[in-house]
Amino acid sequence: MPAPGAPLELREFERPRLEPGAILLQTLASEVCGTDAHLWNGQLAGVPYPIIPGHVSVGRIAEASQAEDVDGRPLRPGQIVTFLDVYGTCGRCWYCTVAHATTRCPERRVYGVTLSSDDGLLGGWSEYIHLKPGVHVIPLPEALDWRAFMAGGCGMPTALHAVTLAGIAFGDTVVVQGAGPVGLCAAALAQLRGAGAVIVIGGPALRLQAAARLGADATIDIADTTPDERLARIRDLTHGRGADVTIEATGVPEAVPEGMRLTRDAGRYVVVGQYTDVGSATFNPHLDLNQKHLDVRGCWGSDVGHLYRAVRVMARHRFGWTDLITREYPLEDAQQALEDVAAQTVVKALIVP
Amino acid sequence: MPAPGAPLELREFERPRLEPGAILLQTLASEVCGTDAHLWNGQLAGVPYPIIPGHVSVGRIAEASQAEDVDGRPLRPGQIVTFLDVYGTCGRCWYCTVAHATTRCPERRVYGVTLSSDDGLLGGWSEYIHLKPGVHVIPLPEALDWRAFMAGGCGMPTALHAVTLAGIAFGDTVVVQGAGPVGLCAAALAQLRGAGAVIVIGGPALRLQAAARLGADATIDIADTTPDERLARIRDLTHGRGADVTIEATGVPEAVPEGMRLTRDAGRYVVVGQYTDVGSATFNPHLDLNQKHLDVRGCWGSDVGHLYRAVRVMARHRFGWTDLITREYPLEDAQQALEDVAAQTVVKALIVP
Amino acid sequence: MPAPGAPLELREFERPRLEPGAILLQTLASEVCGTDAHLWNGQLAGVPYPIIPGHVSVGRIAEASQAEDVDGRPLRPGQIVTFLDVYGTCGRCWYCTVAHATTRCPERRVYGVTLSSDDGLLGGWSEYIHLKPGVHVIPLPEALDWRAFMAGGCGMPTALHAVTLAGIAFGDTVVVQGAGPVGLCAAALAQLRGAGAVIVIGGPALRLQAAARLGADATIDIADTTPDERLARIRDLTHGRGADVTIEATGVPEAVPEGMRLTRDAGRYVVVGQYTDVGSATFNPHLDLNQKHLDVRGCWGSDVGHLYRAVRVMARHRFGWTDLITREYPLEDAQQALEDVAAQTVVKALIVP
Amino acid sequence: MPAPGAPLELREFERPRLEPGAILLQTLASEVCGTDAHLWNGQLAGVPYPIIPGHVSVGRIAEASQAEDVDGRPLRPGQIVTFLDVYGTCGRCWYCTVAHATTRCPERRVYGVTLSSDDGLLGGWSEYIHLKPGVHVIPLPEALDWRAFMAGGCGMPTALHAVTLAGIAFGDTVVVQGAGPVGLCAAALAQLRGAGAVIVIGGPALRLQAAARLGADATIDIADTTPDERLARIRDLTHGRGADVTIEATGVPEAVPEGMRLTRDAGRYVVVGQYTDVGSATFNPHLDLNQKHLDVRGCWGSDVGHLYRAVRVMARHRFGWTDLITREYPLEDAQQALEDVAAQTVVKALIVP
Repeated sequence: MPAPGAPLELREFERPRLEPGAILLQTLASEVCGTDAHLWNGQLAGVPYPIIPGHVSVGRIAEASQAEDVDGRPLRPGQIVTFLDVYGTCGRCWYCTVAHATTRCPERRVYGVTLSSDDGLLGGWSEYIHLKPGVHVIPLPEALDWRAFMAGGCGMPTALHAVTLAGIAFGDTVVVQGAGPVGLCAAALAQLRGAGAVIVIGGPALRLQAAARLGADATIDIADTTPDERLARIRDLTHGRGADVTIEATGVPEAVPEGMRLTRDAGRYVVVGQYTDVGSATFNPHLDLNQKHLDVRGCWGSDVGHLYRAVRVMARHRFGWTDLITREYPLEDAQQALEDVAAQTVVKALIVP
Repeated sequence: MPAPGAPLELREFERPRLEPGAILLQTLASEVCGTDAHLWNGQLAGVPYPIIPGHVSVGRIAEASQAEDVDGRPLRPGQIVTFLDVYGTCGRCWYCTVAHATTRCPERRVYGVTLSSDDGLLGGWSEYIHLKPGVHVIPLPEALDWRAFMAGGCGMPTALHAVTLAGIAFGDTVVVQGAGPVGLCAAALAQLRGAGAVIVIGGPALRLQAAARLGADATIDIADTTPDERLARIRDLTHGRGADVTIEATGVPEAVPEGMRLTRDAGRYVVVGQYTDVGSATFNPHLDLNQKHLDVRGCWGSDVGHLYRAVRVMARHRFGWTDLITREYPLEDAQQALEDVAAQTVVKALIVP
Repeated sequence: MPAPGAPLELREFERPRLEPGAILLQTLASEVCGTDAHLWNGQLAGVPYPIIPGHVSVGRIAEASQAEDVDGRPLRPGQIVTFLDVYGTCGRCWYCTVAHATTRCPERRVYGVTLSSDDGLLGGWSEYIHLKPGVHVIPLPEALDWRAFMAGGCGMPTALHAVTLAGIAFGDTVVVQGAGPVGLCAAALAQLRGAGAVIVIGGPALRLQAAARLGADATIDIADTTPDERLARIRDLTHGRGADVTIEATGVPEAVPEGMRLTRDAGRYVVVGQYTDVGSATFNPHLDLNQKHLDVRGCWGSDVGHLYRAVRVMARHRFGWTDLITREYPLEDAQQALEDVAAQTVVKALIVP
Repeated sequence: MPAPGAPLELREFERPRLEPGAILLQTLASEVCGTDAHLWNGQLAGVPYPIIPGHVSVGRIAEASQAEDVDGRPLRPGQIVTFLDVYGTCGRCWYCTVAHATTRCPERRVYGVTLSSDDGLLGGWSEYIHLKPGVHVIPLPEALDWRAFMAGGCGMPTALHAVTLAGIAFGDTVVVQGAGPVGLCAAALAQLRGAGAVIVIGGPALRLQAAARLGADATIDIADTTPDERLARIRDLTHGRGADVTIEATGVPEAVPEGMRLTRDAGRYVVVGQYTDVGSATFNPHLDLNQKHLDVRGCWGSDVGHLYRAVRVMARHRFGWTDLITREYPLEDAQQALEDVAAQTVVKALIVP
């Protein structure tokens, strides 16, 4: 991706020489996610174009130089692994050490997003990926097929972070706003916190069907309903109280005040879908926040722990993850993949070099 | 149960006259649990014999006098309901209002345990149960067969409390010590918190088989293993670290220091099985607690919220709950039921009048 | 207070006959708070006028009928006590028992606010107050003068609830928006959580001086500054990061998005000042919430625990609480007191019958 | 310290050449703490003798090579700073990234404890200290005299960690077992969490007097009392309930079951004093843990955040910290200092080169 809006190009790179602790990964698949569409639209600040997109990827180790996985075991050629796209979290700054908010570390760089292709094979839409020393590598367990893992993609650790923050109690009614990859993963994970009911609000029909297949107890199509109708529907399902927990995964500013209203008094609301700045929203601090005794949590990024736990959960708990993949594209069709994702005609698209 | 050790007797009672807010319940089933064996052995203090045992029960409403369920809906004859055995939590004392530790309220009385049969039909091993005004009543949803609910019995809200305290994170390895009703329910519920692996340590084989059917990833029989072997086995399964979370449900004092050792550094240990005083245990505060940075939580009793949530979870998440019931006994065989439970020849026994 | 906007009237009542558990209190003082101004302006819904205003009060027990304090000790004539204005929290509904959100119990009634004077002496601006059975009574310890306690007034348990929710860590920089009674109490209590710095933003000068006397490390007058200047000032004081914790106590909707911006990434924001509906506010969900990884908590009401703890804290930790009282008014000047509070010409006003 | 039990020796070292990010510190003072006595007695495993003892120190920067403080500001010669003795926490292993338990990172090395003097000036009892790149450096603010800071010493971040874990609520009664440096710091810090009363159990009289000067509401001398008398005393002070929170800082195994009993039902108990293995203790899991619904937390080590916060708290909240220093010793009297600390004839001893 040479620049925002410019057509994608295929380029050849030299095979990198590995530093101690580095790995060369032969790419099996890399995700095409909404962030890639944002990158192509130039909606993210601070991106060092040209870049190789692709932040969540799976590959087979081609070469490893004294590298270890997160559990401290040596890594060997032939293993199928994934890695945390976030690279370079310093572990030394104030955010890392005092605030314990590692997703706010200023040293973070992201494979496929904030690392330039001028510096090498630092993105997943490519035949090989160069994992620098210090990249966190996690082997996929045998019970977890790489396609199943990629079906979750970056939506899965993001959703796992959000669902963790959501503090779901056994039996809670959970509403998920948004039926994209993050919303669908959140709907599945909420069931794995013992939710009593999971309701997905979103669209289009293709995605709501995927939500139902993943176990959602009810779905509400935003194309057919007004906000008031949605509120009435949720109240009907909750003895008039509203959702115990709501998770926003839409990217639409107006969804945020709506989500506050869908949540019961003294409930919890996690906002994880507002990854780009597309404007403001209006709310009533008395009715929507203070009198409601509402707990609202913004959720940004994810770290090693979220990815590590996502791998464990997906290996153990079988949902029909793989069904989420609508289509696989060879490298030459990356441009088409990008456009299909932007148009929401696919649930999950993969680049398979 | 006229007195500790004395044979059970069948007695006739007058049909009670209902106060406003009270209910007469026609018993469908009542549990025979380990506590009932303790009652018969006289191991609990402050029990006002004679009593009608049976604290967790299900019945059909025969008569209701302006009573409401926990959600605030009016209750009607014909509904199948359960109720919280704990009655009379005051909501006014220091423990209820300042400490928010309702299970420590000194006003609590327990159907089938601390309410005398001299005061009426206040236990479940009986054709009818008199629910006093203020007893918390929860209808069983259609999706939850009463046999499935009773298969959980009082172990389910107890385990739900313990698993909630356990603070399981996605992907955690959870060890459950004990394969009785509480341990089995905990093993099932841990999966509903997204555990990465659940390992049950206990016996006899009948119960470990039940654990495996409920989804335990591994079981360890205490009859075949020494504590050191069990520790080695758990370390093998956890990259040498120990369990992220351990839940004790055994009733054996020595299990507690063992459980501390089975848990990894900075892990969490919930002790829920020590319901009677059968002696002391020895541990090393430096190695087992301080240096381990271990978090240990005693878990006593359960309240309305735990039972309400247990009903919601059992209705939504289908495990083979009903399989846990080994045998149903008519009222006249209550003595036999008690002896079978004491001998651990059954997993779960019900009185079905 | 016969009706919104109507002049206050002095009325005579019969001495009430006490039910078992009830108390007759001879009023020493009752607070005039912002809520009383709202009541007079008719800004609260569901108020059963005529009412006797005055929700936080101190009195000497004139007569007690088998009543106990929160610690379970018998209450005796002559004792100086306060009581929780909130009366009737049921301890049985879904909010009380499942959600553990007692401030959302629908059975709550509030002395001086939602109890009508047609039903008796159920407010503090009166020579005697009738404490019904079940009202939570707390004796003032000897170390706590009743004037010092009343200087905190209802702002103190409200602020204690907010500061508890704020989860202040040792050394945190805490910004308090608002210098009224709640804000001033929050500024004092934040120091008692080990804050590293407490900064109060508000006005007028009289109140900011009180904040400084209570130990605020810095004050910022809203009359002299723009929101951008205030943000710059807070960033200067926090290595460019923003406040670790911000507490809103203003009642002004626009203060809420400003407070989000004053708080650092991954910080915490408690909104406690929006007690009436005076309109909406606009914020940017991406910048102000999601990307910031911000934790926002609405805080409504307070319960017995907050008042009990407020009494303990005020008795133990000597700030110049009493200085907060600007003026005491006899009953016949209640109208004047109301107008002075509405005009913010006093920090704290008391009715002293 | 050439070896356990061997007399201390004074040795000369070459002035180290600084790597980028390193600092040479001219020592102002270094602490003599109980751990140093344990080191000399050979009670700690894995110590690479010979070592330069002294893990908490203050110095003036003599030379700095592109080093930054925790807030990201460049460090300059002349600044008075302290540093975290723990060096090398990797930020990459499973404990650092998944468990977020940095004090359990296997890469940690500790200045003055687990770093050998064969590798340089890596301990505080020395004229200069070589701070390797990556050591966390914190300047002392002007408001915090270095003697006041050293009076807290390593007890302060340790106690801050423990008091944070203790989760003290406003108005809680806090019992501290032990009146050594950690216990005294905990007694002070508990007041800064808004405790309603702080009671110190320990000895000898010299230390209990220090506790009283630091604000303890009551002290109990272990030399004069039996465990039963202490329990009776604490119950007397707490309406018969026991302490809301107890913090153990004694090093004596038997203190741990005693502390469980001193704590109320559903209270919290933090064990921070068991830093060496001096044997086992016996407790009753039913009475002391399960039925009590007790929350017990082992607390090991401290990290950058604790030290950073300790500096902020000590600069802001003036207790008579400096009074804790009983005596300062020149380098040549280090042996004497060690013996005085071991004999508990001093509260706090410093090496002042």
